[in-house]
Amino acid sequence: MKLQLALDQTSIDNALGLLERTADLIDIAEAGTPLLIAEGIRAVTEIRRRFPGLLVLADLKIMDAGALEARIGFDAGAHIVTVLAAAEEETIRRACEAARAARGQVMVDLSGAGGAGRRAELLAGVGADYLCCHTAYDVQGRGRGPLEALRRLRAAAPSARLAVAGGITPERLVALTAYRPEIVIVGGYVSAAPDPRAAAQAVRNGLASG
Amino acid sequence: MKLQLALDQTSIDNALGLLERTADLIDIAEAGTPLLIAEGIRAVTEIRRRFPGLLVLADLKIMDAGALEARIGFDAGAHIVTVLAAAEEETIRRACEAARAARGQVMVDLSGAGGAGRRAELLAGVGADYLCCHTAYDVQGRGRGPLEALRRLRAAAPSARLAVAGGITPERLVALTAYRPEIVIVGGYVSAAPDPRAAAQAVRNGLASG
Repeated sequence: MKLQLALDQTSIDNALGLLERTADLIDIAEAGTPLLIAEGIRAVTEIRRRFPGLLVLADLKIMDAGALEARIGFDAGAHIVTVLAAAEEETIRRACEAARAARGQVMVDLSGAGGAGRRAELLAGVGADYLCCHTAYDVQGRGRGPLEALRRLRAAAPSARLAVAGGITPERLVALTAYRPEIVIVGGYVSAAPDPRAAAQAVRNGLASG
Repeated sequence: MKLQLALDQTSIDNALGLLERTADLIDIAEAGTPLLIAEGIRAVTEIRRRFPGLLVLADLKIMDAGALEARIGFDAGAHIVTVLAAAEEETIRRACEAARAARGQVMVDLSGAGGAGRRAELLAGVGADYLCCHTAYDVQGRGRGPLEALRRLRAAAPSARLAVAGGITPERLVALTAYRPEIVIVGGYVSAAPDPRAAAQAVRNGLASG
């Protein structure tokens, strides 16, 4: 399992500061949507430049112009870009084509896409690399997490490469790992911790024992 | 009816160049998603600075963290931000609260949200200012436009303030205006025209006679 750290800071300096303390504990640095909005795609370029050993994911949540938007991400150095499952199938397909041309990958974020089973089936034919169960930030406070969605998605797509995000803590990891996600995404648990490095280490340990 | 011009260039200079030629013909300048990804939210600030007489919409397509992402837009000077109808209701609600605090507005983009009627009903209670029927860029080439979606949405929400986007041309305007959109959004028809000013004027004339 790979560990992805979501950088949802709104300044590149703060995001790089967090990476300085955690880079050796993670596999994928995510340029989060707020960071991309605030700083633009140069955030990806800067992370690549400063941390050449990490994979970089641009959380673009593409919804409208698959090829154009994916290319902005790959041209800036992203290894992976995200597309929303709620997008038109053609948009997802074009983002995947742009990824293949750039030797990059596409993660499809299933938030808001309704029946995950049906979408998983559809997406398999489009050529997406990863499917991501994602509990929105705004509903995490209600104790909602991605476990049940991940369980259903794994049942619907036994061999798909899955990612999981949304309020993940070391305590929640054990139950999640039963459904074999390839990528586990943490954000606030690390970035809002008094000691982000210790928090990242705790997640890493959870993955190793999962 | 207001005319909104979508600036989907990937450089702020090109976007400003298009505005130089068209600003007096439009009401709202849209910092499009590709522009925001490429340049970051400073695109909004720059448009505000250079064109103080225009309203500016930031096409953020918020999906995850309603208050945080909306505030990035409003803090940069946007009058309106967009949220996806496919987002959690709580995300839309928090974006609307951030808008009220900033004396800004929220446009909810109905792409990918399935039954527009049901969503329109739901959104009315959340406090969104505009509902936008939007045909994705990637399927416009198949001759699909937003007319049928706008017709259904108007039937479901007789008094809502509506916007409409996706492959709009002066020829298509006549049929659309029957459903009383408050905002008509054009993009490629103007930006890809040999003479963008003439194209914007043609849309403006269509609005005046609609």
